[in-house]
Amino acid sequence: MDSFEDFLLDKQKELCDALERVDGSGKTFCEDKWERGTKADGYGITRVLEGGEVFEKAAANVSIIRGKLTPERAAAMSSRGREEIDPKGGQEYEACALSLVFHPRSPMVPTFRADVRRFRVGGKAWYGGGADLTPYYLFDDDAKEFHEKYKATCDAYDANPDGGEVYAACKKWCDDYFYIPARKEHRGVGGVFFDDLENDKACDALGGARVRDAESFTRAIADEWLDSYLPIVDRRRESPYGGEQERWHHQRRGRYIEFNLLYDRGVRFGLDGGRIEAIMVSAPPRVRWDYDVQPESGSEEHRLVEVLRSPRAWA
Amino acid sequence: MDSFEDFLLDKQKELCDALERVDGSGKTFCEDKWERGTKADGYGITRVLEGGEVFEKAAANVSIIRGKLTPERAAAMSSRGREEIDPKGGQEYEACALSLVFHPRSPMVPTFRADVRRFRVGGKAWYGGGADLTPYYLFDDDAKEFHEKYKATCDAYDANPDGGEVYAACKKWCDDYFYIPARKEHRGVGGVFFDDLENDKACDALGGARVRDAESFTRAIADEWLDSYLPIVDRRRESPYGGEQERWHHQRRGRYIEFNLLYDRGVRFGLDGGRIEAIMVSAPPRVRWDYDVQPESGSEEHRLVEVLRSPRAWA
Repeated sequence: MDSFEDFLLDKQKELCDALERVDGSGKTFCEDKWERGTKADGYGITRVLEGGEVFEKAAANVSIIRGKLTPERAAAMSSRGREEIDPKGGQEYEACALSLVFHPRSPMVPTFRADVRRFRVGGKAWYGGGADLTPYYLFDDDAKEFHEKYKATCDAYDANPDGGEVYAACKKWCDDYFYIPARKEHRGVGGVFFDDLENDKACDALGGARVRDAESFTRAIADEWLDSYLPIVDRRRESPYGGEQERWHHQRRGRYIEFNLLYDRGVRFGLDGGRIEAIMVSAPPRVRWDYDVQPESGSEEHRLVEVLRSPRAWA
Repeated sequence: MDSFEDFLLDKQKELCDALERVDGSGKTFCEDKWERGTKADGYGITRVLEGGEVFEKAAANVSIIRGKLTPERAAAMSSRGREEIDPKGGQEYEACALSLVFHPRSPMVPTFRADVRRFRVGGKAWYGGGADLTPYYLFDDDAKEFHEKYKATCDAYDANPDGGEVYAACKKWCDDYFYIPARKEHRGVGGVFFDDLENDKACDALGGARVRDAESFTRAIADEWLDSYLPIVDRRRESPYGGEQERWHHQRRGRYIEFNLLYDRGVRFGLDGGRIEAIMVSAPPRVRWDYDVQPESGSEEHRLVEVLRSPRAWA
């Protein structure tokens, strides 16, 4: 156990406690602890709340995975500029992460996904994480406020005293990552995303932008989660909606599944020896696929899709 | 247009007409014709019936795709023993296929998936296809009858006059193909599956079994589809069911999606330049993911899962 692992476990508890209070239905997060082989190979704590009033399904997972790098993963990581990694594989690694997804019942409340993670090989540590918002009906103020909060956090760790560079890089990274090429759509209105940050050197992964302290920055992003999301929940949870809007909600949740199963790197890594239920717990509960749904021009649904096709500058 | 392409188009019409009659709700298959680039690059005909009485969603697609082999695909095909294919890529190819999936509304009626396809490069043609059954509640008689019908068809084209070898090979291929490693489950009770069959030589792809005439065999499999499935629909369509069974149905449909998006070769090929809606039309309409569903020991749901974990010899 080290302090970053403690941070993940404490944050998981804080998130679940807060969600239960906000949900207000009396439903609680169940807790499943599981081990991967022996405890030395890693473990996980899966926590899920299902059937709540505000949250139809909310999940927050901690996982710690230890093993030897396969040649495929080692090559991929080495090619992303991690010089310490032998592209032939075989080195011992440890990956620890806290990831969450909150699926509200109402189509008026956006889905929130976030994670932070650390990857260690041979005494070196790399940090990653992010937070992003997936609305079903777009309220510009929500997206703007959400992005502004992460911009402020990014600015506080931007090596450029004028700020703006780290946020711009992480915002673009998020837009690029959560993209469904086959749909030519981004999954949501984005947020921030980063990977491969190192504590003791300027991070090239941000395309020139420099983060001052990778671990502190990563923790600060996680500390922003509840504050960036709960005010939006509070604002939208009582908004009325009907069956047609719920249908649209469930259709759009299909995109969430398509992205996760077709493209998400974390899902593909996790399936390779992880616990499937700890991965699929991120799936929205009720989903539908109807053929060739095309929102009417000028509708709210159409306006959302336009923004998903051409991401906006929100902050 | 050649005779196999005609066969696919005629078969598509026959299937849709039959399904509309069986459904009986008055709902009909819509028809979308689409082109891929110019008509010379290929085209498709997507036909879908949604919201029927027996069939909540039924789709039958014809697609003809022409292009130049990419190095990745060429290498994969060459490694599967197609000597005519230059592993470096660049050769002109044509792929034509008819694929279908019928998703019934009732959990008592199994899902039916099937396809036939031909792949041509440089004057050579390879055939593939199959048919398989995905029940949500297992009626042994249905699975047995279904397999026996395909065994009879396989036997009629088995170069071994005693029969049994082609069916055994295609049955195993189907079990192996429709497998979800992360779940340690097969998707359904299987059927037959084959690929890489050549008309003018004994087919090694069947692991020693020999098919007499690849094209005729492929057509015969497609000719069996309605006869193998409709009697089962007829037998189960009036069976009563409740909300708990419907919930199980929708949870199991999640596995259908997981297989298609995570593992299916056709989906991954199709996404690479195909039409996403012609691929995702195969998705079941209403789906749900609940956390860690474990059927009670001794229940009908549990019995199904046991069979999905250890495929049976049905014929």
